[in-house]
Amino acid sequence: MIVVMKPDATPAEIQHVIQLVQQLGMKAHPIYGTERTVIAAIGSKRDECRQSVASSPGVESVVPILAPYKMASLEVKRERTVVRVGPLWVGNCHLGIIAGPCSVESYEQMLATARAVQAAGATALRGGAFKPRTSPYSFQGLKEEGLKILAAARQETGLPIVTEVLAASDVELVASYADVLQIGARNMQNYRLLEEAGASGKPVLLKRGPAATLEELLLAAEYILNAGNQNVILCERGIRT
Amino acid sequence: MIVVMKPDATPAEIQHVIQLVQQLGMKAHPIYGTERTVIAAIGSKRDECRQSVASSPGVESVVPILAPYKMASLEVKRERTVVRVGPLWVGNCHLGIIAGPCSVESYEQMLATARAVQAAGATALRGGAFKPRTSPYSFQGLKEEGLKILAAARQETGLPIVTEVLAASDVELVASYADVLQIGARNMQNYRLLEEAGASGKPVLLKRGPAATLEELLLAAEYILNAGNQNVILCERGIRT
Amino acid sequence: MIVVMKPDATPAEIQHVIQLVQQLGMKAHPIYGTERTVIAAIGSKRDECRQSVASSPGVESVVPILAPYKMASLEVKRERTVVRVGPLWVGNCHLGIIAGPCSVESYEQMLATARAVQAAGATALRGGAFKPRTSPYSFQGLKEEGLKILAAARQETGLPIVTEVLAASDVELVASYADVLQIGARNMQNYRLLEEAGASGKPVLLKRGPAATLEELLLAAEYILNAGNQNVILCERGIRT
Amino acid sequence: MIVVMKPDATPAEIQHVIQLVQQLGMKAHPIYGTERTVIAAIGSKRDECRQSVASSPGVESVVPILAPYKMASLEVKRERTVVRVGPLWVGNCHLGIIAGPCSVESYEQMLATARAVQAAGATALRGGAFKPRTSPYSFQGLKEEGLKILAAARQETGLPIVTEVLAASDVELVASYADVLQIGARNMQNYRLLEEAGASGKPVLLKRGPAATLEELLLAAEYILNAGNQNVILCERGIRT
Repeated sequence: MIVVMKPDATPAEIQHVIQLVQQLGMKAHPIYGTERTVIAAIGSKRDECRQSVASSPGVESVVPILAPYKMASLEVKRERTVVRVGPLWVGNCHLGIIAGPCSVESYEQMLATARAVQAAGATALRGGAFKPRTSPYSFQGLKEEGLKILAAARQETGLPIVTEVLAASDVELVASYADVLQIGARNMQNYRLLEEAGASGKPVLLKRGPAATLEELLLAAEYILNAGNQNVILCERGIRT
Repeated sequence: MIVVMKPDATPAEIQHVIQLVQQLGMKAHPIYGTERTVIAAIGSKRDECRQSVASSPGVESVVPILAPYKMASLEVKRERTVVRVGPLWVGNCHLGIIAGPCSVESYEQMLATARAVQAAGATALRGGAFKPRTSPYSFQGLKEEGLKILAAARQETGLPIVTEVLAASDVELVASYADVLQIGARNMQNYRLLEEAGASGKPVLLKRGPAATLEELLLAAEYILNAGNQNVILCERGIRT
Repeated sequence: MIVVMKPDATPAEIQHVIQLVQQLGMKAHPIYGTERTVIAAIGSKRDECRQSVASSPGVESVVPILAPYKMASLEVKRERTVVRVGPLWVGNCHLGIIAGPCSVESYEQMLATARAVQAAGATALRGGAFKPRTSPYSFQGLKEEGLKILAAARQETGLPIVTEVLAASDVELVASYADVLQIGARNMQNYRLLEEAGASGKPVLLKRGPAATLEELLLAAEYILNAGNQNVILCERGIRT
Repeated sequence: MIVVMKPDATPAEIQHVIQLVQQLGMKAHPIYGTERTVIAAIGSKRDECRQSVASSPGVESVVPILAPYKMASLEVKRERTVVRVGPLWVGNCHLGIIAGPCSVESYEQMLATARAVQAAGATALRGGAFKPRTSPYSFQGLKEEGLKILAAARQETGLPIVTEVLAASDVELVASYADVLQIGARNMQNYRLLEEAGASGKPVLLKRGPAATLEELLLAAEYILNAGNQNVILCERGIRT
């Protein structure tokens, strides 16, 4: 990280930051400019020590050098990830086509839809059994009955199933039926859910929240990756209707 | 609700919608205009029947007459809500002042802060024990230890405690220490959490999500109200930094 | 429009609204429900009379029946628009491919790019001569010199030129070189610019603003259409980086 | 600025960046870490040279050290700005109260409102003569007639006038009546308007755009400051309704 001192920082303040950086296990490279001093701290562990340096007297700001996400960057894992679930391949130029209705309504509906989307080239079937609803009075989905219908449609067609999970406490149930867990835009920063989905071992399709920045999306993915799950599919979303 | 027929809807399609509306237990008032027919359905139960009418042949759109939230409106509960927690009163022109640090760090920090904000006029103390962090590598809070520190600061000062709960599975623990459960902007549409917080019986401070509309905020509140909890404090937020 | 009366509206208030609706040249159809009265006003001219009705005593809300945009809807112009500019066709399942660099930098750069994108299948060439810059210190584009370079690249390749116009006062200049005027996301609600672009007679590519709703986008298009210009290309955008 | 080299950057690539930085008039301080090399470029002129360095072979990213805005920071102008317009003082703990209706409708309305808000403690009067309307069919304001009404209300009460200007070409007209030019949220990044408002010499009240970041807001202010106008009032806004 780079520590930017205030223009009027005193030599004692500069010296204090240099020592603090060294105590934190990094090498300090002070660079004395005409207007201000900047201290490059080499060997940092990203976010962790940043707060204590930033709050030292005479410090104007601390600028991170590396992206705040590790596992979501190509820096750590050099080759591009391909998530593979039967016929569904996503990543590194593989284009998966995941198709299906908003909600699972009945076995007949799902089977007819599954056959139609398969004929049209889809490589996975989607359908909501647990529905995130803006209103508590809207239909909330068929829940486990919907998951069973999805599994039956998979049985008939061979298409893997992508379906949304809304709560950390539902991950185990949904993962027992689904091939890919979908996390919706509204839950992109539901960290407990991200951790549970990560721990499930199932691939996760993570949708971008409305107004979320790219960095926020990648850090949300990092929660899943950090739980030991390398199979994360990022899905652009977030346009309002 | 108002059913707007397409300009070229046939008499049979119009008749079908009228019958459907009646079967759903509402009265149908067709109004034949010069360009199109509009059917007022009186006695509707808000969102529930809307889908089946909207997907009937010849229907262009279905316009709700009433707001989609009930309990969050003054329509149902005529007098304005005042949430009262010891010295903290919020609502109907009562202005609560909830103050404190971002994170609970230590007993000394919280006690000093609590005394300072109390002297400055605050009527409640806030501090994060569970912290929602964009990055999994950031400090996630002192958790239960932080809750104990908050409770100790309340013991010393008499200020009620407002603190964030991040997950449905933490509601019981947090509610056993806190006076008011805070739900952060990122969790505004974490419906399971809203339901659990509603069921806890504790007052809930609900923050508005970034880019959330007023209707989305009020419907999120409706999840809490619908769980039997009338003590919801709405908090404007959602400005990006 | 539908006028929703308050539950406790008096008969005199209801009568007053009925008369007001009639004075405004519409037919009033009162529907007396169990909880409240609703008055359907038929023959309305959209937005215009809504304010005076909405502010009458006893009125709770006024719900429009028709979309607030006219010319942007299929209601008025039944067949789908196809914008045609030489090889560039957009709309009604015609997919235009508009390609090129962010900024026009030099003739060599534009010509090489134009040939490359043409070989790859592009049907139009884009490049910024006037650049909207978050910072006043960033490069603002080559301006008219850039427009001349674009025109020269068109001369060589036959590709029509799509380029951004930033200000109402630049429309005449940009339109004298460009085949399609681009209006960027930040200017989606710069109404004077929309009107000038509409009046120019050139097709307009309108980008969706960050966080803009679909209705806001269509109403922005309506400004252009209302200036007599039917050639509007809508461009989804608005995802933050 | 700090130039972060890729982990596998070659010595020749590193040497090339060092020379480029020196050619651009800055001092280059290479810091050789265990995983990568970082080059601190001292004496930079903010944004200008960044592109050419960032596109050099072996460079991963370029991190600016200083904020991209100059005049909007306390770095350049050390004392806090106070905008003073008669009784309206804003900034450095002075709280201005600007009150009035959405639209100017009539002289009677404005005069009654002006007297009421003055009695209630307002230090300036607002009212829209040019209205930014989502729909082209909505009332667009009384325009110059509205400005005259505002001026008459000022004459009667002594309250300075704050009113919105929508287009660069209207700045001269609006500035001939108004004491403070208001730039609305939708025009926060209408750069031509910002420049014209800056050049007018009148204080400018700049509203934050929906979903705009703080940096975007400050850079919008920088456009006004950069036109020689130090009297910018920032106004938080940007919450959707």
